[in-house]
Amino acid sequence: MGAISMSEIEELSKRLKQFAVERDWEQFHAPKNLAMALIVEAAELVEHFQWLTEQQSYELPEEKHQQVALELADIFIYSLRLAERLNINLLETVNQKIAINEKKYPADKVKGSSKKYTEYT
Amino acid sequence: MGAISMSEIEELSKRLKQFAVERDWEQFHAPKNLAMALIVEAAELVEHFQWLTEQQSYELPEEKHQQVALELADIFIYSLRLAERLNINLLETVNQKIAINEKKYPADKVKGSSKKYTEYT
Amino acid sequence: MGAISMSEIEELSKRLKQFAVERDWEQFHAPKNLAMALIVEAAELVEHFQWLTEQQSYELPEEKHQQVALELADIFIYSLRLAERLNINLLETVNQKIAINEKKYPADKVKGSSKKYTEYT
Amino acid sequence: MGAISMSEIEELSKRLKQFAVERDWEQFHAPKNLAMALIVEAAELVEHFQWLTEQQSYELPEEKHQQVALELADIFIYSLRLAERLNINLLETVNQKIAINEKKYPADKVKGSSKKYTEYT
Repeated sequence: MGAISMSEIEELSKRLKQFAVERDWEQFHAPKNLAMALIVEAAELVEHFQWLTEQQSYELPEEKHQQVALELADIFIYSLRLAERLNINLLETVNQKIAINEKKYPADKVKGSSKKYTEYT
Repeated sequence: MGAISMSEIEELSKRLKQFAVERDWEQFHAPKNLAMALIVEAAELVEHFQWLTEQQSYELPEEKHQQVALELADIFIYSLRLAERLNINLLETVNQKIAINEKKYPADKVKGSSKKYTEYT
Repeated sequence: MGAISMSEIEELSKRLKQFAVERDWEQFHAPKNLAMALIVEAAELVEHFQWLTEQQSYELPEEKHQQVALELADIFIYSLRLAERLNINLLETVNQKIAINEKKYPADKVKGSSKKYTEYT
Repeated sequence: MGAISMSEIEELSKRLKQFAVERDWEQFHAPKNLAMALIVEAAELVEHFQWLTEQQSYELPEEKHQQVALELADIFIYSLRLAERLNINLLETVNQKIAINEKKYPADKVKGSSKKYTEYT
């Protein structure tokens, strides 16, 4: 990734809020609606892969690779808007979640297995 | 947000990669599969809001607020994994996308309207 | 609904299979891929509603109403393809699921509440 | 599929409406909300396949095969509810959509190709 500091991420979140305010769009940005918008972008991402094999999904032609990148950007944008609307500290929560995952999926127990934690007795 | 530097985001991406490697899970992490995992998390987010009104979606009880935060974390985690697998610079692409959106949706033209850009003649 | 008999639904499923065979598309129709295609259509449905209020979602302009109908058709088409590929009796399973739901959500217990069954102690 | 007549499908749609009315749930069944509930079920379907290969997705163990069937049932149930709320004739629209697809994807032109119609010049 390029060299940026965290203040640019705060800046990004502020820039996205300003973008919405300038357009009088915050009225549409209830968390319920933002969650819908987010999953719509996630599906645009899925669409690029639906007929590809797993191997082909690693080797995307340049144009498709760029489109996939832009869908990921859209998902990230809506995630930041949703976090802003609900006053969620995204990075803090990600660290919490990794810790939770480390407990649910101890390496020695799950190595090489794709089973969900609920599928272990 | 808490005070962190960008190297911690790189650190996060590395930590997530290591988490997968330790568990011999990278074999499952074809971009196609990660896109599927990402949309599954996006739907877990949507599920929290499906029967709520827009107003209720702003005023989540504490437990639900925390669950919503954790779903956002999951979405962000899979986004970072997908970006790593496809060598995508997520922050760079987000900035590109905001610039694209500023052109598609000039403030003076779209103020207060939720129409998609394709719905303007 | 128009007056049709069940043999026309079998006919529909056969017609959809033939459509895929004529185009040598069955090679792409692994259940994994069909599930992805289905959720992509479900998201195109969601997109029509994301900025609307619940009230507005009842009162769709004619053009949008027709688009929503076509997305529902796409979802049903992929459901039928998936059922065909996995030899699933869709109608039988729907009846099973309604019976399951009647047990999970007894009317006297859940009347007027949108809580998920797991949220009752 | 079992031997049933179309009046049983109308019966199904009526049974689903009655199920909601008995529980005073129609208040939550705005089309916007039903679209959200539908995509949540579509994601539960996707989740069963996310770490499987395409080949494995054809060869599901019995328990998973049954779960997949139940998710398809849930999707169909929400599709019927949404069609009922918006007065949509689902089967009529499916036939319209197949006709549209036959024009978009003439067999001689698209045979063996998974390209979207917009990807043909």
